[in-house]
Amino acid sequence: MSVHRLTLGDVLGEHRRGRPLGTAVVDGDVRLTYPELDARVNRLAAALAADGVGPGERVLWLGQNSFRVLELLLAAARLGAVCCPANWRQSADELAHVLTDLTPKVVVWEESEAVEKARGQVSLDARWVRSGEEYEAYLPAEADEPAAEVGDDAPVLALYTAAFDGRPNAALLSHSALIAHSMALLHIRQMEDGFAFLACGPLFHVGTMMFTLATFQLGGKIVFTPAYEPAEVCRLIDAEKCTQAFLFGPMIDGLVEANKDGSYDLSSLRFVSHSPEWDAMITVDDSPWCASKMGGYGQTEVGGMLTFLGLGMGGAGYAGRPSPLVHVRILDADGAEVAPGEVGEICARGHSVFSGYWNRPELNAAKSAGGWHHTGDLGRREADGTLTFIGPKLRMIKSANENIYPAEVERALKTHPAVADAAVIGVPDERFGQSPKAVVVLKDGTTATAEEIIEHVRAEIASYKKPREVEFTDAIPKRGYTPDYDALDERFGGGAYPGS
Amino acid sequence: MSVHRLTLGDVLGEHRRGRPLGTAVVDGDVRLTYPELDARVNRLAAALAADGVGPGERVLWLGQNSFRVLELLLAAARLGAVCCPANWRQSADELAHVLTDLTPKVVVWEESEAVEKARGQVSLDARWVRSGEEYEAYLPAEADEPAAEVGDDAPVLALYTAAFDGRPNAALLSHSALIAHSMALLHIRQMEDGFAFLACGPLFHVGTMMFTLATFQLGGKIVFTPAYEPAEVCRLIDAEKCTQAFLFGPMIDGLVEANKDGSYDLSSLRFVSHSPEWDAMITVDDSPWCASKMGGYGQTEVGGMLTFLGLGMGGAGYAGRPSPLVHVRILDADGAEVAPGEVGEICARGHSVFSGYWNRPELNAAKSAGGWHHTGDLGRREADGTLTFIGPKLRMIKSANENIYPAEVERALKTHPAVADAAVIGVPDERFGQSPKAVVVLKDGTTATAEEIIEHVRAEIASYKKPREVEFTDAIPKRGYTPDYDALDERFGGGAYPGS
Repeated sequence: MSVHRLTLGDVLGEHRRGRPLGTAVVDGDVRLTYPELDARVNRLAAALAADGVGPGERVLWLGQNSFRVLELLLAAARLGAVCCPANWRQSADELAHVLTDLTPKVVVWEESEAVEKARGQVSLDARWVRSGEEYEAYLPAEADEPAAEVGDDAPVLALYTAAFDGRPNAALLSHSALIAHSMALLHIRQMEDGFAFLACGPLFHVGTMMFTLATFQLGGKIVFTPAYEPAEVCRLIDAEKCTQAFLFGPMIDGLVEANKDGSYDLSSLRFVSHSPEWDAMITVDDSPWCASKMGGYGQTEVGGMLTFLGLGMGGAGYAGRPSPLVHVRILDADGAEVAPGEVGEICARGHSVFSGYWNRPELNAAKSAGGWHHTGDLGRREADGTLTFIGPKLRMIKSANENIYPAEVERALKTHPAVADAAVIGVPDERFGQSPKAVVVLKDGTTATAEEIIEHVRAEIASYKKPREVEFTDAIPKRGYTPDYDALDERFGGGAYPGS
Repeated sequence: MSVHRLTLGDVLGEHRRGRPLGTAVVDGDVRLTYPELDARVNRLAAALAADGVGPGERVLWLGQNSFRVLELLLAAARLGAVCCPANWRQSADELAHVLTDLTPKVVVWEESEAVEKARGQVSLDARWVRSGEEYEAYLPAEADEPAAEVGDDAPVLALYTAAFDGRPNAALLSHSALIAHSMALLHIRQMEDGFAFLACGPLFHVGTMMFTLATFQLGGKIVFTPAYEPAEVCRLIDAEKCTQAFLFGPMIDGLVEANKDGSYDLSSLRFVSHSPEWDAMITVDDSPWCASKMGGYGQTEVGGMLTFLGLGMGGAGYAGRPSPLVHVRILDADGAEVAPGEVGEICARGHSVFSGYWNRPELNAAKSAGGWHHTGDLGRREADGTLTFIGPKLRMIKSANENIYPAEVERALKTHPAVADAAVIGVPDERFGQSPKAVVVLKDGTTATAEEIIEHVRAEIASYKKPREVEFTDAIPKRGYTPDYDALDERFGGGAYPGS
């Protein structure tokens, strides 16, 4: 056993000793100290092991938020296994894909029509344990800590993340990656002894999971609630004196409305300034995380955040600078570094980078080409060294041997006052191979000519990236949040892409 | 190359890109931005490589504080080599020991009689480079970044640390260990973008080095001054708007005296409260590090601090709780965990633990027995899980098969109002093997009988640990800060120790 090892199981073992009196989790009527959580995790681990969950095997959670998600993760940690909390609100077909892709040995689930339907669709050799009484009965009366020698580079958490070009992939995060990401949050959010986090966003999403894990790393208190419900969130912040919760704009407005008569004392919450009403209810926090309004750039594949605006406040790039535990390069399609001011793919190396996707060897080789994690997103180093996120690198157009990324041109198009939405495709060009073409939706009541729009883009970015043609349309077809380039190519004559 | 790698060279590479305009170091007339520091480090690395410094080789700094210590460390980092800044104020004999023990390929040195004498005493195949003009001439005009593929588990820093039982040993710290320790400080000290550290304590000591490295990790500004000189320290804090400096009690009093007329504006310093005069000059900081008056437990072998009082303020143990990147166990002589409240050896595992001592294979095997780093210090888990440091584990007495550590009994003896100093040895005992005997120095003008002192200890700790005999003496012979047990044994009849 290496003297340098630190697994999530080790962290729990430290808290059992170091915080014997501290509350670890709160969930409805359930309150567990760290020693109580540790004992339950060992009991769960024994049950999982009896069902064949060993090193590298997967366990799946399909349900709302629950303290049992953390138990399942920590039991998997002690066994060298992988825990995946998945979105139970998906369709039966999507859930069936998760089941057949992940092939878990144990599924812990909450009642749901879609889950039951998906279960009927697949042939899976797994133990199904219903959360609640059945789960409690599943735990043996007592059990020792598992004897498995788990390395901290072993994957322990799997989170399915949206794929722009097909089925979702499960990003695998190791003990080391999660602990490194937690350290970055402890640092930037200035989390202190006594921190209490309310997990009121979905635990299958990295945004809620990352603060749950950072609070665990610190030995703080994690309060679980099944889902965001404004009055209940207010009640829990007040009752448990929560320091932080998973909240964004409209969620905050919901709390302000739910607490308009001031029944709840939300002053324990140290959070981001939002509105005069909100600021009067809470304690506005001045940590770099809160002062920068939680700015930065991230993705599931780096454990959450790769860069923090709080490390570059007032800089030119609104993504700030990298976490102290990673380093970033902006690379071109050949893996060479581009100059500051040029757009390329955001690539990273460091402790919080993931261990690849479950069961995607070819994609993993591409994602880690040259020893750099390729985020699939475009970015730019500004002159002051801060970073700007441009957009997803979905396509590349090659014109006269120059690389042109649609997202960069679209960004420039959208700064034109008359442009409501825009997408850029590559059309075959005899002389240049391809040339960029813009498809533009104008704002109601505005006008602009193709020439005006091309001229606008030429002033914003390098001239060779400007569209040669502009077509106007009523709406850009989308796939999720991004343009549906296949549909656009078909309708507006795209083609001759590099490699095609 | 692993996508998870992060070396000190990588951190420098990130800052070169991310902080092109930021000041990295200030030292007298020298001011370097991060890109300038990066370029000089590559030039130095090229010179060192030409002198045979490759992976695992050592370079030695013998001199006062200088920005060149950081350059040497970072050049070693880029080559996979090890940099050792050693105490140049040692005697020629002690320096000669360092030279023959470390066998560096390159020595960078400042003028000193002892260094010149030591150089004459040893036969060493090393290049000697005098700091200043000779050093500047040693750097080639330009050089690319070295091509070496350095792993982040490679040792990069060696610090000689006092040995209680003989010659000092060089503790080897890896890139990963130093970066982990820096993260702990960034967290506990709440270091923010723009942090400026004044290195006014010795860089060969981990206390100054650890904040130098944490500031580097953050991309802050490091201000070097050859040594602590109160007026110059005041001037530098004012001129460079330093956020922190290496300061303790009497050093702080020196600054208050040097600035009694208020000529220097020290308000940029965010530091520990000390006296009304001091608190009025600076900004008293409320980070857990400063609010806890820099409390905790540490040693060079863990990169600096292992535990922080700031993670257990108000707890029973004044060493607080472990850094989030380590975990701690209190073990007995057989490697079994002792119960809370019992004294045992403080053992640790985690990211900031060192890689062993240079050239001490047998000692290293003992220090890492069972996969736990054995600190050689005694501690205790209190009922609330916080930790107390008891004292060094220099000796163990075995009486009726029970382990008794002198440091614990000495601690109890010193709480008696009449006791000025005390030491405990084991004397041969026919029935019990050994029995503890106290050697006590009384305070001037006080009296106490042996029986009263034994009774006092019995009330403080477990009865079997109380001395059976007490002898009074004028002074306890010391070896450094600790009792000279060999001398005490000889004089007061000690012997029959376990294993002897």
